[in-house]
Amino acid sequence: MNITHQHTPSDTPIPGIAHSTWASQANGLNSLSVWRQSIDAGVATPPHKHDCEEVVLVHAGAGELHTEGKVVRFGAGETLVLPADHVHQIFSVGSEPLQLTGIFPQTPVKAWLPDGALLELPWVS
Amino acid sequence: MNITHQHTPSDTPIPGIAHSTWASQANGLNSLSVWRQSIDAGVATPPHKHDCEEVVLVHAGAGELHTEGKVVRFGAGETLVLPADHVHQIFSVGSEPLQLTGIFPQTPVKAWLPDGALLELPWVS
Repeated sequence: MNITHQHTPSDTPIPGIAHSTWASQANGLNSLSVWRQSIDAGVATPPHKHDCEEVVLVHAGAGELHTEGKVVRFGAGETLVLPADHVHQIFSVGSEPLQLTGIFPQTPVKAWLPDGALLELPWVS
Repeated sequence: MNITHQHTPSDTPIPGIAHSTWASQANGLNSLSVWRQSIDAGVATPPHKHDCEEVVLVHAGAGELHTEGKVVRFGAGETLVLPADHVHQIFSVGSEPLQLTGIFPQTPVKAWLPDGALLELPWVS
């Protein structure tokens, strides 16, 4: 059992994306990871996929989810459910940063680019 | 891929505990469940355990976690990491409701009482 402080996301090597890992292997977990992210307006994640499911809780801002040839708009107060192995890309398209919690049934979280190359994550996951 | 609205927790058959399932098997998931709960001041969950890990994000209020013979106080802005198979009980001990997000690498989520009896959850999990 472990209690930690929820740190505000801080800058990462990816411009415009701030991150804080709120729960992961670093807290003794084997099968869950929880990320808190802030994505500046006009910024997008790389297109990528995981070999596990993902749930994204949207707290503020507006976004577009590009996945499997579809584009879906979403905003604060919505939850995205992403199946395993689906390439997806999230664009922050509002006037304020997109505030997200990303939840994975895996730790560390593995991510791949669409061409199958491993995406090295610049944070503990 | 699935986008849903984050419903405010609503009353359950357990007095003082309001609940909304934000993501689960009902959204096509196989290995994640996300619950949003509000526990009135002075109310506690039953003591129970899961056969999977659990992460609890605390958004408001104050609580006590009773687990494995220990009592730990926690509050807004903290994250609880609970190992699998640990009996735990959460008490809402502040002056306002305890606002939580509960995250499990399992759906449906199974819960047991300390004596091993299955705890039937009164919500989709």
